[in-house]
Amino acid sequence: MREKSADRTVAIMRTTLELGQEIGYAKLSIEAVAARAGVGKHTIYRRWSSKGALFLDSLMSLNESGLDYPDTGDIVADLRTQIHAAVDLLGRPPFGPLVRALVGEAQYDPQVAAALSERFIAPQEAKTVARLERAREQGQISPDFDLDLAMAILSGPLYFRYLITNEQLTHAYVDRVLEALFAGLRGHFAS
Amino acid sequence: MREKSADRTVAIMRTTLELGQEIGYAKLSIEAVAARAGVGKHTIYRRWSSKGALFLDSLMSLNESGLDYPDTGDIVADLRTQIHAAVDLLGRPPFGPLVRALVGEAQYDPQVAAALSERFIAPQEAKTVARLERAREQGQISPDFDLDLAMAILSGPLYFRYLITNEQLTHAYVDRVLEALFAGLRGHFAS
Repeated sequence: MREKSADRTVAIMRTTLELGQEIGYAKLSIEAVAARAGVGKHTIYRRWSSKGALFLDSLMSLNESGLDYPDTGDIVADLRTQIHAAVDLLGRPPFGPLVRALVGEAQYDPQVAAALSERFIAPQEAKTVARLERAREQGQISPDFDLDLAMAILSGPLYFRYLITNEQLTHAYVDRVLEALFAGLRGHFAS
Repeated sequence: MREKSADRTVAIMRTTLELGQEIGYAKLSIEAVAARAGVGKHTIYRRWSSKGALFLDSLMSLNESGLDYPDTGDIVADLRTQIHAAVDLLGRPPFGPLVRALVGEAQYDPQVAAALSERFIAPQEAKTVARLERAREQGQISPDFDLDLAMAILSGPLYFRYLITNEQLTHAYVDRVLEALFAGLRGHFAS
């Protein structure tokens, strides 16, 4: 019985993602997922309180690895590897457009914002900061380095392209951003 | 007669913003704006094809200055001044939460995305790049400097905080970001 319920949960989440890709997040509804999955909508509402919650769980089920950081002992190489992996995930269907839709809804639905933060944003931030802290303990990063600020500077240009200018995220773009961030802008500006 | 129509347009946009602040963008509807403004909904639809289009025009009517760049001859000081002004606009009601809602809808509504890009994002980008180009012509920026990349690096950390972590945008944060971007990360990482 429990097995059957777990199967059904997986089937509902898979249907949610399929339908989300077909008709887009805006038009997706719990009723439509229920009809396609062949379950009653109350079966869905028993487990998920809203379309946003169902969609978030469905998306997270695609991201089992959770974008873990490698630890080769070289923090710069490991940052690059992890950001490349993030770009591979966010830059392509199905994850890419679906996460965009969810981040979009989070901008005006506080419940979706809270769930997205708790399930995706905060854990990823914690992983980045933990990896940077290990590097700092190993003497690879100076003690006064502000890790939260580093997080914003490393991630911001990617989100800018992902959410604002909607250009393709590529490894080459990541490498150009990292190079500029490491070198700094000062050399380019007359003082 | 023309005057009266212009008055009505202003009244509809003002009502849209008032109602948007009261009930949030998600619950806003053209019907509700029409009822509050005392006009028929066809009057609104004659001018605006969707809620997103109406909302975008209403928001843009608040931002008459269009976040123009000063030109004191000092590019670094002018960048700082302009980003402070952007933070003052985006970090506070009414513009802040309302733009967030619109950027949110743009993530899954291509029409809203296109309108937002055309009316807000692209013109602001063009202003930034034009100001950087003037500085380059005046010898304040090195010739090989990638201005589009600079735009992403300067804006990204602000959008990250605005859209992803939802922390307050402040002048102090802008100054910390600019300092880190100018100095570069290399000094903080052991090579």
